[in-house]
Amino acid sequence: MLKVFDNQYRVNYNDSDYTGRLSIAKLGNYILDTAGLHAIELGISMHQLAKRNLTWVISGMYFSFSSLPKVNSMVVVKTFVKDFSKIACKRDFIVTTENGEKIAEASSQWLVINTITRRPVFLDEVFPSFGEIVNLEEKKVEKNKHLRFSFSNPSAPFKYKVMYSDIDINTHLYSMRYLELSLDVLGKDFFSEYRILSADINFISEVLYNQDVEIYLEEPSNDIRQVEMIRDGSPVFRVEFKIEKITN
Amino acid sequence: MLKVFDNQYRVNYNDSDYTGRLSIAKLGNYILDTAGLHAIELGISMHQLAKRNLTWVISGMYFSFSSLPKVNSMVVVKTFVKDFSKIACKRDFIVTTENGEKIAEASSQWLVINTITRRPVFLDEVFPSFGEIVNLEEKKVEKNKHLRFSFSNPSAPFKYKVMYSDIDINTHLYSMRYLELSLDVLGKDFFSEYRILSADINFISEVLYNQDVEIYLEEPSNDIRQVEMIRDGSPVFRVEFKIEKITN
Repeated sequence: MLKVFDNQYRVNYNDSDYTGRLSIAKLGNYILDTAGLHAIELGISMHQLAKRNLTWVISGMYFSFSSLPKVNSMVVVKTFVKDFSKIACKRDFIVTTENGEKIAEASSQWLVINTITRRPVFLDEVFPSFGEIVNLEEKKVEKNKHLRFSFSNPSAPFKYKVMYSDIDINTHLYSMRYLELSLDVLGKDFFSEYRILSADINFISEVLYNQDVEIYLEEPSNDIRQVEMIRDGSPVFRVEFKIEKITN
Repeated sequence: MLKVFDNQYRVNYNDSDYTGRLSIAKLGNYILDTAGLHAIELGISMHQLAKRNLTWVISGMYFSFSSLPKVNSMVVVKTFVKDFSKIACKRDFIVTTENGEKIAEASSQWLVINTITRRPVFLDEVFPSFGEIVNLEEKKVEKNKHLRFSFSNPSAPFKYKVMYSDIDINTHLYSMRYLELSLDVLGKDFFSEYRILSADINFISEVLYNQDVEIYLEEPSNDIRQVEMIRDGSPVFRVEFKIEKITN
């Protein structure tokens, strides 16, 4: 079993945004893909869980960025399980260039849910020897920071209906599409003017095919942008971006 | 110079749709990415052209599918320039598994446009020795089949505004997003019930950031689906899918 697992990606043409650099949602694809490969290696993959009507879902992520690479650059993603508790598993990521220069870091929290009840289950019911698999002792996992927003002057809602291309093999909105839609509400010009330093992400509720959501943007200060996705009046996703102006 | 260029892709987690197989829009990403790498090899890349306010745009593609691979499968894309004329360049693709079993084929037509006037330019003005570069004689290139639709009973329009994540380095709607949005109007259940055999695609006009489009679906017969994208009353994109029912 590889305690630290890594995989390489070339920044494909369509992984870059119009500025010619890797988009952070596409970087999110790389890290989730690497997590999936590591889970296969450990024998705890979604494919294995699916046979028992179980699946992994991500509940939160803190994602920070140093410098985003250009099209055709190589990117190395390293991942390892950092901690686990009765119910949650924490997986970290370090993303670098081929030469080891840091591109990004991420820390993510995961639950196993029953795909029929859509409720979380205890990890030790699913994997009786989870500690042995990941070579760690069970302990209390620090909870995600719960983002609490109080929007006083939000943007007009951006209305969206979840489509075929937005859903993943769990038939719900793919986690990195929540993030990508949040980048979309920042608007094109934002990415010429600002750099995103970090994204603090709360996945609050699954969103299913054909459901309608409204996405709101608030600018509480020059260096913070907050985005909230609402379905039927309740939040399903929140992200807080720390940003800085690009100076030439 | 490699006359036939190839590149490999692993079907990443997010390249599959909810059925667990590679989506045809994501396969389209692989083939355009391979075309871009080949163009770099030949010294005719978009990056080279951008310095002269020029870029490649795709005007049409015929795309046929045998069997779409599952997540984590390896896919080999081979591409070569098939023909060129004064104004158009035809590039073909063959997509197989690692073992050479056919996944898909595509034939695409390309123009070079001036990024200021947005008008096509003659290939020999851009590359005085294009024939030598691609090792072919100039000849008449068979035109794309122009799709002509007469929708008698279209679906209600699917309204969409082009977002940051939809545009590519040319700052217009990325060609495979036209196709992906067309798959979206087919709807989720379509992909459990039908297999797409081919997609005959006309890229008629660029669509820019923040522009509004309407997408219409027509079902002229059991084995044909037609999709048209309209902006300001004029068509900007058409695709005709040949389909068959999945029988178990």
